[in-house]
Amino acid sequence: MSLWHPARRSARLNPSIIREILKVTEQPGVLSMAGGLPSADTFPVAAVRAACERVLTDAPREALQYAASEGYGPLREWVAAHLATQGQTVRPDQVLITTGSQQGLDLIGKVMVDAGAPVAVETPTYLGALQAFNPYEPIYANLAGDADGPLPEAVTALPHDAPGTRLAYLIPNFQNPTGRVMPEARRAALVAAAQAARLPIVEDNPYGDLWFDAPPPPPLAARWPEGVLYLGSFSKVLTPGFRLGYLVAPDALYPKLLQAKQAADLHTPGFNQRVVHEVIQGGFLDQHVPTIRARYRAQCEAMDAALHAHMPEGTEWQRPQGGMFFWLRLPAGCDAMALLPQAVAAGIAYVPGSAFYAQQPDPRTLRLSFVTLTPSDIGDGVALLGRVLREHLDRHNQPAP
Amino acid sequence: MSLWHPARRSARLNPSIIREILKVTEQPGVLSMAGGLPSADTFPVAAVRAACERVLTDAPREALQYAASEGYGPLREWVAAHLATQGQTVRPDQVLITTGSQQGLDLIGKVMVDAGAPVAVETPTYLGALQAFNPYEPIYANLAGDADGPLPEAVTALPHDAPGTRLAYLIPNFQNPTGRVMPEARRAALVAAAQAARLPIVEDNPYGDLWFDAPPPPPLAARWPEGVLYLGSFSKVLTPGFRLGYLVAPDALYPKLLQAKQAADLHTPGFNQRVVHEVIQGGFLDQHVPTIRARYRAQCEAMDAALHAHMPEGTEWQRPQGGMFFWLRLPAGCDAMALLPQAVAAGIAYVPGSAFYAQQPDPRTLRLSFVTLTPSDIGDGVALLGRVLREHLDRHNQPAP
Repeated sequence: MSLWHPARRSARLNPSIIREILKVTEQPGVLSMAGGLPSADTFPVAAVRAACERVLTDAPREALQYAASEGYGPLREWVAAHLATQGQTVRPDQVLITTGSQQGLDLIGKVMVDAGAPVAVETPTYLGALQAFNPYEPIYANLAGDADGPLPEAVTALPHDAPGTRLAYLIPNFQNPTGRVMPEARRAALVAAAQAARLPIVEDNPYGDLWFDAPPPPPLAARWPEGVLYLGSFSKVLTPGFRLGYLVAPDALYPKLLQAKQAADLHTPGFNQRVVHEVIQGGFLDQHVPTIRARYRAQCEAMDAALHAHMPEGTEWQRPQGGMFFWLRLPAGCDAMALLPQAVAAGIAYVPGSAFYAQQPDPRTLRLSFVTLTPSDIGDGVALLGRVLREHLDRHNQPAP
Repeated sequence: MSLWHPARRSARLNPSIIREILKVTEQPGVLSMAGGLPSADTFPVAAVRAACERVLTDAPREALQYAASEGYGPLREWVAAHLATQGQTVRPDQVLITTGSQQGLDLIGKVMVDAGAPVAVETPTYLGALQAFNPYEPIYANLAGDADGPLPEAVTALPHDAPGTRLAYLIPNFQNPTGRVMPEARRAALVAAAQAARLPIVEDNPYGDLWFDAPPPPPLAARWPEGVLYLGSFSKVLTPGFRLGYLVAPDALYPKLLQAKQAADLHTPGFNQRVVHEVIQGGFLDQHVPTIRARYRAQCEAMDAALHAHMPEGTEWQRPQGGMFFWLRLPAGCDAMALLPQAVAAGIAYVPGSAFYAQQPDPRTLRLSFVTLTPSDIGDGVALLGRVLREHLDRHNQPAP
């Protein structure tokens, strides 16, 4: 008899493909456009240092003690006030502070997803959400979409019969991995379809503040507060190393999510919550986030120009209006996963798009992050990628001898 | 059709009884011996402040960026070296840094516990472990015990047939809530019984460093490294507000736990891991922990003396040899839950013992923390508790008029 008898759900836990790829690609000399990491140049080190000092002077006993599972009161109030600026009406007691928004996804899976129940996802979608939901053993229903996001008729067509589709997981702003943003009209139509289907929405918004020219339309949660679980994060506008996110839940579900949070880690580190609140309380992000936007816009423009200069004919992409990623579809005959070793050997790394599909991956897709490298390195990296692709296509298209 | 259709497992999520009690009891003027909070007087504020400054000077970009799911390498090495001093042979790559050891319990539940499978627990046991395991829908098998811990024959008698008992959750050192410590002989017999039954052990050790006169015997994991998942924590020896714990796993299970960790929150805050490592790396705990021991021993002695002075005849307790808690069994006719309102009205709070039982609570039990109040307040608080109990017993024992 074997000593270890893992639970059935553990078969759904697997190594992250991205993580495995990063191990291979993060070598000295490789220009990596693979990682989804914000630029470390944007981290407000001086402000964090001053805030640590302040918190440890003003409230050391409270900051270092156990704390409430809901989160630090003033930070919850800040979140509610912040969301009001984008059209959401939220009470602070609907805000649950989480250990990154990844934890919010885990809590939602725990509370909402039964084994064998469908969960609707975009095609492609954020790999980390699939990882969070997987151990709760859902089946995935892919939402067909276009450049504006999932199609409302795809929501209408979701399975209704028991066990019933439990939720639709959506990233309306500068989606990971595609970079697409849902226009106002699509948001309205999608919410209407979800309302008609009585289908709760999980709205994940880590990138919404990273717009270039104009803010995205108001969140889905502003249209349907009682039917949307909303996830936000400080990882992309401040620092991911503090692991601070938040979940906004309707009263109908908040208590169960709070109980799941308590069971998961008692509470998110109180010190981190107080430090971040200390940093942001005086309007810091109003000055700070525009500097991130300007930086990322320049990098995005550099990548778009480089793609135009170096990609072989037949490569498809949309220049994103914000966020961190380009999503490419390579010409016929290119398999992004199969080509990765050649790309790494040439000194450039990306994430093959197949990692982001719950089912039926498109092997011609790949994701490029434009926020990690300088514009100059982006130019060099994309040129290398173009060369690898052209060489492959030349070999591929050569007539047999 | 209802909009929200929670997962079946969410029925097993419930408000924490302790949390609800604390809401009632943490009023101004109430001497609370209810909470399981370490004394804030022990928090090394100056060392944490210096470490924050150092980390933000030496490695700000790394500390504020996303980091490895396994945890910060030097901290994992420190943990392995620390465990060697208590007789464990552990490689750093068996150490998984968690967001408090509560998260370790959640990850173990996720990876090990199928719905309907038995999980063996002490009677009584740590409420937070029951909360962590509950959403994975185990049934609980109570391990009968005595003052030395669970009985080996209780392990031998656990259900073997499918789905099979998945694990035994044990707190060998200064157990929460009973304060009991397993002697060497009981450890040997328990491990032998578990080995014979091929039953994995989860060994939770948050209090092991808080001994008064002599360190407890080596951990169960030292006797059976391949069959024990070991949980440690910085919450009781440094600060709980940083939410830092660790899980040591045999190679057979480490990858699944790591994947579950990644799905749960990507990683524990890297900043916190680096700050704690900075604080402890030079042997800080060798000086710091003895000051906590001396403080808690004095408080423990004060409580023991007060209990002898004020408890009504028939009250039973063992003076603990470490940790944070006294466990009392009141005389016949006393129900600790029923008496709590009178106790709070008199200005004293405790946790009724029934909160700590998976099944069949003993209503005469209660838990008192001796680490929160000063020795003088402990004397006053226990005197008040004694008065409440005597008044109750006097009423109870009065002949009917």
